[in-house]
Amino acid sequence: MKQAMLYGPGDVRVEERPDPTIVEPTDAIIRLAATCVCGSDLWPYRGIEPITGPTPMGHEYVGIVEEIGSEVRNVKVGDFVVGSFVISDNTCEICQSGYQSKCVHAEFVSQTVGTQAEKARIPYADGTLVATPSQPDPRLIPSLLAASDVLGTGWFAAVAAEAGSGKTVAVVGDGAVGLMGILAAKQLGAERIIAMSRHPDRQALARFYGATDIVEERGDEGVAKIKELTNGLGAHSSIEAVGTQESMMQAIRATRPGGHVGYVGVLHDVQLPGGELFFSEVHLHGGPAPVRRFLPELIRLICDRKIDPGKVFDLELPLEQAAEAYKAMDERRAIKALLRVEAA
Amino acid sequence: MKQAMLYGPGDVRVEERPDPTIVEPTDAIIRLAATCVCGSDLWPYRGIEPITGPTPMGHEYVGIVEEIGSEVRNVKVGDFVVGSFVISDNTCEICQSGYQSKCVHAEFVSQTVGTQAEKARIPYADGTLVATPSQPDPRLIPSLLAASDVLGTGWFAAVAAEAGSGKTVAVVGDGAVGLMGILAAKQLGAERIIAMSRHPDRQALARFYGATDIVEERGDEGVAKIKELTNGLGAHSSIEAVGTQESMMQAIRATRPGGHVGYVGVLHDVQLPGGELFFSEVHLHGGPAPVRRFLPELIRLICDRKIDPGKVFDLELPLEQAAEAYKAMDERRAIKALLRVEAA
Repeated sequence: MKQAMLYGPGDVRVEERPDPTIVEPTDAIIRLAATCVCGSDLWPYRGIEPITGPTPMGHEYVGIVEEIGSEVRNVKVGDFVVGSFVISDNTCEICQSGYQSKCVHAEFVSQTVGTQAEKARIPYADGTLVATPSQPDPRLIPSLLAASDVLGTGWFAAVAAEAGSGKTVAVVGDGAVGLMGILAAKQLGAERIIAMSRHPDRQALARFYGATDIVEERGDEGVAKIKELTNGLGAHSSIEAVGTQESMMQAIRATRPGGHVGYVGVLHDVQLPGGELFFSEVHLHGGPAPVRRFLPELIRLICDRKIDPGKVFDLELPLEQAAEAYKAMDERRAIKALLRVEAA
Repeated sequence: MKQAMLYGPGDVRVEERPDPTIVEPTDAIIRLAATCVCGSDLWPYRGIEPITGPTPMGHEYVGIVEEIGSEVRNVKVGDFVVGSFVISDNTCEICQSGYQSKCVHAEFVSQTVGTQAEKARIPYADGTLVATPSQPDPRLIPSLLAASDVLGTGWFAAVAAEAGSGKTVAVVGDGAVGLMGILAAKQLGAERIIAMSRHPDRQALARFYGATDIVEERGDEGVAKIKELTNGLGAHSSIEAVGTQESMMQAIRATRPGGHVGYVGVLHDVQLPGGELFFSEVHLHGGPAPVRRFLPELIRLICDRKIDPGKVFDLELPLEQAAEAYKAMDERRAIKALLRVEAA
């Protein structure tokens, strides 16, 4: 099969690799319909996260089940499935409490599978994969693919931020996850959604997904602007979808006392000052999103055409051109690139 | 009137000072029945928090209303009242959401009033003070005084940690606030309460208030012990009642993914590592406790003799001996010292 491999900074190659096979009786093999490039794939691509040798890439995926292990019960050959970027058994105490991303059997798909490929072996298929009610309209594939990570992650951020009826929600970060946070906040009933963005194309998408206000200022000026829009009190909820010291402090400072910060940008070199956090009196919750918790609901909303997360993909290329997809995202020419996998 | 003043490290003097008077129409003057020394009073007492000159001390108080301003409606002269350690109007949007400690008119009583005295002027009396249903049995005064800070703070920590039915709660800190966190967790229905303590007398009090297990180990060893007691998963809820880097990390690490850390120890020189916090996937909430939110319920529980928080005072002295009270707490001879104020 074809698979995208990272050889070093800026060096992505699509090459011929052995097909995956069933290893454990709880595995499934899927043939991908589509996969994509994540903002987090850019860390190793840019050489900031070192790799030790040629590395399979990718952790977002939708496709058709091609083979299942002897113990798989919840999905069958031929099902169209969406999976989370973290493997989970969905039965342990942590999964049952809704934190499948921290399952006692959790594995990051990016570290053990690599889904920028024609096929992938998915461990704990029963707990990780969710089948769509029927074979989906091909036009829905980008949206279903978004559910695998960016939509599920933005949704978790909005839930963690307790975005809901009557709330004012500030969104820090105008990448795919931030945009999906806006979509989620709107679905959850937020009254006012303030997108922090200075790019006209992303502002337009933010408004499409439900943003009612745009703040172009950053840092302390951005916080002052949010306060100005909220009677000096701050937002009820803030979504953090970047992961830097500045963006995290911006989210905390933009939130009123007793409010909620939902943070999903993977924190790199961030230290939260205890005293300031203490006196801010906000709620803080986040981490790798338990996408599996939300998949059944997200699939239903997509199949019922209630939400259109697939618009977040503004570049579509065949898998063979993965290198160009990385380049376009690295250079911020694309928000998010979808890689089409041709049927066998 | 007599009032305790801090002149410098280790130098507390009770001296004659002018009686307070009504300044704003929303003020009340109370004659104290009792006050006490807080762990946080020891920071300036030890010279760690510098003072600029002789400073009135104390922020915990119960007493009788002696005079009210023209706009005070909710308390009347002669009422026995309990107040929070933060002044609040109890009407602004932040107060109404339950965060009176961050009221738009918030003042710390320790900074502007000083209640280790015979009398005190309480601003925003309507929003800050809560009257008992009738003149309380004098034996209930220590418990009512505890509600003013340590009980209200421990209660907030337990609520922030979402201690409740079926939960396992770990409590970091065996001072007065930690002990009150145990009492609160039990009242809120926690199934198992693990007190982290190595002092036999405090362990006994912890058990009296509802601890089911004691862990003597600290730091990583303490965390390993909590994991051992919880199938390797960690506690559902952790209460942090110390405020140091070590105790905060202990609370975070002792909590399972998706669990809740309620932290109320004032954080001094603490930096929370973002990456570890992110992947821990805990909820974090805390800060100065909005005691006013809980006062009506706590007063009822005390007057109905459902809880006995007053046992946390293991030393009782007249106000005149405030210096000895500070000394006993500084030397850890007392958990918490009550200062009795004689009726005029």
